[in-house]
Amino acid sequence: MRQPAATIDTRAAARARERQSQLTKPGGSLARLEDLAIVLAGMQGTERPRADKVHVVVYAADHGVAAERVSAFPQSVTQQMVKNIAGGGAAISVLAAETGATLEIIDVGTLQDGAVPAGVIDERAGRGTANLAATAAMTSVQLAAALDAGRAAVERATTAGTQLFIGGEMGIGNTTAAAALACGLLAAPVGALVGPGTGLDQAGMARKAGVISRALQLHGKYLDDPLEALRRLGGFEIAALAGACTTCARNGVPTLIDGFIASVAALVSARTCPGAGEWFLYAHRSAEPGHAKVLEALRAKPLLDLGMRLGEGTGALAALPLIRLACALHANMATFDEAGVSTADG
Amino acid sequence: MRQPAATIDTRAAARARERQSQLTKPGGSLARLEDLAIVLAGMQGTERPRADKVHVVVYAADHGVAAERVSAFPQSVTQQMVKNIAGGGAAISVLAAETGATLEIIDVGTLQDGAVPAGVIDERAGRGTANLAATAAMTSVQLAAALDAGRAAVERATTAGTQLFIGGEMGIGNTTAAAALACGLLAAPVGALVGPGTGLDQAGMARKAGVISRALQLHGKYLDDPLEALRRLGGFEIAALAGACTTCARNGVPTLIDGFIASVAALVSARTCPGAGEWFLYAHRSAEPGHAKVLEALRAKPLLDLGMRLGEGTGALAALPLIRLACALHANMATFDEAGVSTADG
Repeated sequence: MRQPAATIDTRAAARARERQSQLTKPGGSLARLEDLAIVLAGMQGTERPRADKVHVVVYAADHGVAAERVSAFPQSVTQQMVKNIAGGGAAISVLAAETGATLEIIDVGTLQDGAVPAGVIDERAGRGTANLAATAAMTSVQLAAALDAGRAAVERATTAGTQLFIGGEMGIGNTTAAAALACGLLAAPVGALVGPGTGLDQAGMARKAGVISRALQLHGKYLDDPLEALRRLGGFEIAALAGACTTCARNGVPTLIDGFIASVAALVSARTCPGAGEWFLYAHRSAEPGHAKVLEALRAKPLLDLGMRLGEGTGALAALPLIRLACALHANMATFDEAGVSTADG
Repeated sequence: MRQPAATIDTRAAARARERQSQLTKPGGSLARLEDLAIVLAGMQGTERPRADKVHVVVYAADHGVAAERVSAFPQSVTQQMVKNIAGGGAAISVLAAETGATLEIIDVGTLQDGAVPAGVIDERAGRGTANLAATAAMTSVQLAAALDAGRAAVERATTAGTQLFIGGEMGIGNTTAAAALACGLLAAPVGALVGPGTGLDQAGMARKAGVISRALQLHGKYLDDPLEALRRLGGFEIAALAGACTTCARNGVPTLIDGFIASVAALVSARTCPGAGEWFLYAHRSAEPGHAKVLEALRAKPLLDLGMRLGEGTGALAALPLIRLACALHANMATFDEAGVSTADG
């Protein structure tokens, strides 16, 4: 993972900034929508960026730590939801259809027996991770395979001309893995990162916090290296998301980061690939309380704050229209000259 | 203005809430997107609401108070921007085209000589308001005409089957009128409502605050009646927006409230038509500092907070995709039964 990120085209960003100053509106009055167009111009190396071709990949995996009863849902829901996503009935499926984004679902390590369901890509790095509260979640070979599943999907998307990449996830137990990993990466107390996930009650949250504490005690000496922290505390889909983030950055493809799990994966990527963070846009602030801490570490200012906490990439697709509207305003608004409109104090 | 608002269909809302609880996601995990579908179901009287047919009306007018140099832009910009909106070059024009919303622009009282430009509807209540710091902004006849221009546009939209109405505005000087009116309606100090508008510097803001203070001193005894406050301190486009809000509520058409100016108009409507506020959705929190106070009075929780402060209806159209996605998720996601997915603790 030593190859650095691609370089942002600061001249294209400067041209976009100059264009924004000439559009028929008080300077700065479109605020974040102006910034989005300028930042995306720098990423795409063009004065007029676009986010028409958007590709979403949902990475699904199971977690050994689910045995500790850290989720409100049974572990079988991972596989059921994989089928539901592939079948068009999940939230991410509906959002992809509505926004015209292409959608892939990759089984990167569920408990699925035999072949994966129709419409699902098989990149399994294992049959669920090991219980991170008892041992390392993954072997080194499994970690490499999961990172590579992330990389490969972005390579395909890059070849297909994707203008914006979105990584989502599905995996019962994965807020526990993500919270443990974030604690390790940020040297933060468990209380700052643990949350209800899919809907734990107070007793469930206390149990989850205890499980994460045990895991941190077990693995605490080995967490200075972000990839080793990922191997010990993460999950296959979290590793795949980290690999996807890094490959986006290396390939110069902007990626829109979803919620809590995706942000923890982005943090791994930012800490292992110099400059990777320059390629990340942030979609939303999750209701999962640990997200705030992770966003802070990434210096991220998400676009939306709607209390969402579903994952799958749903927050990212909810924010996508804002990016598209920002591009349209930037490209299609008249300048003061073109419209014959007087400037401020003019 | 004594006719009350239409009644919300609480049974349709309850059916929508029940449906949300059966969709394949942790309960409440789509948060505001769930609420939007449920609230809109109650407004539209159907378990499956839609926001496909959206109509935007931009009301434009000039303000006598512009003579007090309360804007960073010259007054001629109102008419120039009317042409720009009609010509497709303004931010609202681009957003309407992108979202497929229909767009009308109504001159409700600019300083335009002779006929209004092509593509603009002529509903002029006067040639600009009088200077509210020196006299009442409007006569009673003018106020009635401006309210009626708001009403008439919503009647046309209702007949055309509009599922969601958006009112926008253009008028150099109108943050001064809106701030003065909000001060009057809320009995709030000038400092809580005054802001930079299109981009005043500190000296300009101090001048603007002084103008509003003079106006409040002049009209202070007559502000208990919201319509009289509107006549004395408002503007033609603000009155038209208030009339539009009230007609939406009476006709049972949901309306998505834009930024500062539109929210002040919504406040007039809420205070003159019982139940009108039930029909308002709130798009965004403007960077104009007075907006917070007005939103608080309306108990409004806007969807977006992107630092926008352009007006025209741009914040509302930026938020529209969220409403559409909320409707699509609500209508198209599979239920737990349909998808064979286990429920929590299932």
